[in-house]
Amino acid sequence: MNRVCRNLMVALLLLVSGVVSAQQNLWHRVAVVSPEVNDDCSVTVRYFAPNAYSVEVTGDFLPEKSVDTPYGVMNVPGSASLTRLDNGVWEYRSEPLASELYTYSFIVDGMSGMHDPSSSYFMRDINTQMNYFIIPGERGDLYTAQNVPHGTLSKVWCEQGGVNRRMTVYTPAGYEDSDERYPVLYLLHGMGGDEEAWLATGRVVEIMDNLIAAGRCRSMIVVMTNGCTKHVSAPGFSHEGQWVPYGSGSMDGSFESLFPDVVKWVDAHYRTISERGSRAIAGLSMGGFHSAQISKEYPEMFDYVGLFSAAVFRGDNSASPIYANFEQKLKRQFDNAPKLYWIAIGKTDFLYEENVRYRELLDSNGYEYTYVESEGGHIWRNWRVYLSEFAPLLFNK
Amino acid sequence: MNRVCRNLMVALLLLVSGVVSAQQNLWHRVAVVSPEVNDDCSVTVRYFAPNAYSVEVTGDFLPEKSVDTPYGVMNVPGSASLTRLDNGVWEYRSEPLASELYTYSFIVDGMSGMHDPSSSYFMRDINTQMNYFIIPGERGDLYTAQNVPHGTLSKVWCEQGGVNRRMTVYTPAGYEDSDERYPVLYLLHGMGGDEEAWLATGRVVEIMDNLIAAGRCRSMIVVMTNGCTKHVSAPGFSHEGQWVPYGSGSMDGSFESLFPDVVKWVDAHYRTISERGSRAIAGLSMGGFHSAQISKEYPEMFDYVGLFSAAVFRGDNSASPIYANFEQKLKRQFDNAPKLYWIAIGKTDFLYEENVRYRELLDSNGYEYTYVESEGGHIWRNWRVYLSEFAPLLFNK
Repeated sequence: MNRVCRNLMVALLLLVSGVVSAQQNLWHRVAVVSPEVNDDCSVTVRYFAPNAYSVEVTGDFLPEKSVDTPYGVMNVPGSASLTRLDNGVWEYRSEPLASELYTYSFIVDGMSGMHDPSSSYFMRDINTQMNYFIIPGERGDLYTAQNVPHGTLSKVWCEQGGVNRRMTVYTPAGYEDSDERYPVLYLLHGMGGDEEAWLATGRVVEIMDNLIAAGRCRSMIVVMTNGCTKHVSAPGFSHEGQWVPYGSGSMDGSFESLFPDVVKWVDAHYRTISERGSRAIAGLSMGGFHSAQISKEYPEMFDYVGLFSAAVFRGDNSASPIYANFEQKLKRQFDNAPKLYWIAIGKTDFLYEENVRYRELLDSNGYEYTYVESEGGHIWRNWRVYLSEFAPLLFNK
Repeated sequence: MNRVCRNLMVALLLLVSGVVSAQQNLWHRVAVVSPEVNDDCSVTVRYFAPNAYSVEVTGDFLPEKSVDTPYGVMNVPGSASLTRLDNGVWEYRSEPLASELYTYSFIVDGMSGMHDPSSSYFMRDINTQMNYFIIPGERGDLYTAQNVPHGTLSKVWCEQGGVNRRMTVYTPAGYEDSDERYPVLYLLHGMGGDEEAWLATGRVVEIMDNLIAAGRCRSMIVVMTNGCTKHVSAPGFSHEGQWVPYGSGSMDGSFESLFPDVVKWVDAHYRTISERGSRAIAGLSMGGFHSAQISKEYPEMFDYVGLFSAAVFRGDNSASPIYANFEQKLKRQFDNAPKLYWIAIGKTDFLYEENVRYRELLDSNGYEYTYVESEGGHIWRNWRVYLSEFAPLLFNK
């Protein structure tokens, strides 16, 4: 390719987005590499801010600190100061880190929540956009796309109670090339999340592709619903406009009562094994609450139940008939006990005591369950771990 | 729901992401609404930065300005200064705007490319993340999810030349509930883009859902490939690690020579009408070049061809046999002329003269084509318009 042609191609690239800031960012990024994962498994983050007087980074790769909040003392990620170099770039290098996916953002002159303009790696959780990086190793590799057969991820619309609502569906590698039928895991998000939460922060596609390719897990379909019945979708995909899903979780029985519509739709549109022994339901936090409620309400539906840091006692009996007579319905569920009833929570989770009480309820009735207690609190790091431990247990009994 | 329960739910929500910056952003965002589309179709953007000495906004909703670049004088989006209010929030209100989707970012104390931390509405193009807003009306409504039947969007992996490469596929509303076969539009991105470019900045799902629902367009499948054969996917979805796709376009014949594999895979995995009269190929910039090359190389494949701001003369004959003997192959293509050969470009596009020459070539041979000339340059705003004008012409002859 001659020089003129190459120059024109560069010009074309610079112009392609038609936004001047795009150009400025491209030029800017040539100089600033951030984040950079170093050979010793530390990370270096950099931020170009020649005029700033203070640049800090905060994220879950830094030691936690305790802060007072309106809800008591909570452990939150710490922060660290970047050092200004002569060229206006600020820099911070961490200690060597354990293999994980970590999220971070910057605090610039006291303004928090600033993204890393040098990185294309970001995710949205609730309304927060965070950058992330992955430290390779056992955990990090599980959360990274590997050179293995990949499943398909579809964003579909499913009629629930006469309303079209958006869902995401993972079908495993090989689904499109076979006539086989597959078991289904229904995987629910927490309060404030939406049908994309498990994709972005939960790394479902990477975890399932890698577990299945390693022979650690059955090939299965994973269905991720939107648990907020006030809205039909995540922000940006709804005709309701640019609403903010803050505080949008549904704990009024509406989501649970619509769940048979979801299962019916999935069974009609995918090659599922449509029976209790090939269906699992699991969720985090509010989604764990939903999983407990739905599985006890429709005991014929699920043989595998996962409660991840579940907000399990949050039902208001008066909100919906769904929430009434919980213990009676739980008895009915355990009269024909599910093959797996799996409970996991972190030792410092603010729902820990609530889960102790729930296990006491199960114990006092002799209901069998599996219990996993981890370090840490009410955090995505735990939920990714729980999924990667729960999925291999499914559909094997 | 009692007060304790409500408080616990709020605490749960605050904790759900496990990142302190999430909380700070949530509190922060209660106070700052940005962007706000006003009743007179102006927009107000706001930015909380009590310590900043200067906050500007830049975006394609502001009057363009001319700047000197290494590639000559170019028109780029202008910028405007925000005004600091007493509470540390900076604010700018635009003039009333025509209905459109507009992108923007902030320049804070001279640092460009700063995102809007008050908004969940952002998109990635190449490596640049931009916030956006939509002014309602004819154009804006076409780019917004409406209360109409929705198609499905799938992220699939397709074997091309023995390598699994990622694609996005739109199937129209009703596809899953019928046995019908559908025509296919192959829609290609520009240099530096990837298989997600037409989704995010191109608004394909919204445009197709809305055109089809309004009866302005046939129901069709839309397949969006990754035109960069050096990589298998957009950043974050590849086992190649966290690479940067800057300058990653393929104009070496590799993409074009693999295209029959794509068509074969799509025909094998979707209910397509597998014939020339039901296949279209179109693309922007480098994708327009690819569309011209592919359609002339495989004349039996496509009856509809769309060149959007095409970089149509960029082939290096020595790079690949694909690029050799262009005029002979074009003659072969037009000996059995495509039903539609559609060319569109903006008057100030830097590829305008190149397209004049291309039309002269077509004219001198008497090859029939449709020509659309718009205002503006090499920008996504035009490409969304071109798609919404091109799609209704497909598969009707």
